[in-house]
Amino acid sequence: MDKKQVYPNARARKAEDPDRPVWLYGRHAVAAALTNPDRRIERLVATRNAAIWLKEQGVEATPDDLKPDAIDGMLPPGSVHQGLAAYAHPLPRHRLKEACQPAGHELRPVLVLDQITDPQNIGAIFRSAAAFGVRAIIAQERRTPVLAGALAKAAAGAIETVPLVQVVNIARSLEALKELGYACIGLAGEAESPLSQVQAEKPVALVLGAEGAGLRQLVGETCDQLACIPMAPAMESLNVSNAAAISLYELTRGQDFLSGK
Amino acid sequence: MDKKQVYPNARARKAEDPDRPVWLYGRHAVAAALTNPDRRIERLVATRNAAIWLKEQGVEATPDDLKPDAIDGMLPPGSVHQGLAAYAHPLPRHRLKEACQPAGHELRPVLVLDQITDPQNIGAIFRSAAAFGVRAIIAQERRTPVLAGALAKAAAGAIETVPLVQVVNIARSLEALKELGYACIGLAGEAESPLSQVQAEKPVALVLGAEGAGLRQLVGETCDQLACIPMAPAMESLNVSNAAAISLYELTRGQDFLSGK
Repeated sequence: MDKKQVYPNARARKAEDPDRPVWLYGRHAVAAALTNPDRRIERLVATRNAAIWLKEQGVEATPDDLKPDAIDGMLPPGSVHQGLAAYAHPLPRHRLKEACQPAGHELRPVLVLDQITDPQNIGAIFRSAAAFGVRAIIAQERRTPVLAGALAKAAAGAIETVPLVQVVNIARSLEALKELGYACIGLAGEAESPLSQVQAEKPVALVLGAEGAGLRQLVGETCDQLACIPMAPAMESLNVSNAAAISLYELTRGQDFLSGK
Repeated sequence: MDKKQVYPNARARKAEDPDRPVWLYGRHAVAAALTNPDRRIERLVATRNAAIWLKEQGVEATPDDLKPDAIDGMLPPGSVHQGLAAYAHPLPRHRLKEACQPAGHELRPVLVLDQITDPQNIGAIFRSAAAFGVRAIIAQERRTPVLAGALAKAAAGAIETVPLVQVVNIARSLEALKELGYACIGLAGEAESPLSQVQAEKPVALVLGAEGAGLRQLVGETCDQLACIPMAPAMESLNVSNAAAISLYELTRGQDFLSGK
């Protein structure tokens, strides 16, 4: 693997206490953290404009008033903080059985990420997951970047509402999801059935692999079915967050928990 | 506007000659440029591994053999070049009428970007556009970042195959598209009709606005119809490249130019 592709978050993780506070930044990311009763915040900093924006959103908070440059200095270089940052404790861990238990007649999907490591993509996937009523996201503990920084910014608040279940083994988690009543559908470019033909009598656990590599063999074999997104031959694959968005849109089509359906 | 949201590419543009060569980097971006007969390349640099990869892809080229660090030094800090970079002339300009002229019975869409400026998002939109057979992308000349760097990397080669038409005025371009036979459909969260109910008897020009701001008033009013993507109330909006991907998936559903449909 090219050394450039080791993401700083993932690398930093190993050396760090997973329960240590992290920086969240960006207006929607921080506003959502402030309204999450499960989130303990150590410090909140805001520019004057961002503090006004928070108040306009109806979020009660008393941030330290700082200039943008001072906030720049607290965060990694290039962090697009929009004048708002919070030093916050990580959220409590979720367990697969509790987080994924189907409820009532709603066919809410769960999303399983197999070896997806890019923080921006994972953040965008959280955002789409919230938009399409996903019950939980499951990912491998040792490959998942910390839910903070650029990931949390891209998630636009969705890390506060969509539970992340960190597991040791993805294939074993698929077996556990089957026991809970899920159909495990793996997204694979080489699959013959389009996702639109997947029968939706059970809730779906949608399994996504990394761009290029795809699903690992055992993970693919553990799925009940593989399905593809029909595409023009000019392009080999989609960006993984775009593939996730399309799949969630297709799988939740017409469900009651969507508005404007 | 927060100063952090002025993208360096967009800012640099004004001061620069638009026909000056630019750096492309990333394996798929550079491989696609090398196989594009319209692309003039001034210099190609590759690590030994990347040169082997190029040969495996069947791309004929004789790159300068450099160490990764030497390529780092030629590019902006943090560029994820994967051992491959090309200093290349911009592609020839495209004109709306020629690039968007419908052909035969294929209902290929065109995509119109209203005030979307983030290079990563625009790159990902190009990639989805290629995947769903989009005829051309239309964007406002003075707001569009140069097709290079992180944008080209995110596009994974799609900037070589999907024409970009740069226009002065988006609303006037919608009128021109209507004359060519397109139905102009604006994506808007507040619209009542879901995109899946848009009648597809004509090719569609799908108009996307910036996240948050949405379509500008005149642009929205010039559309034939507004449509939404049904979503759970928990999330206000999708990332714009995810919204584009979902929309293109929906609009091209079942079309002959897709494989595996």
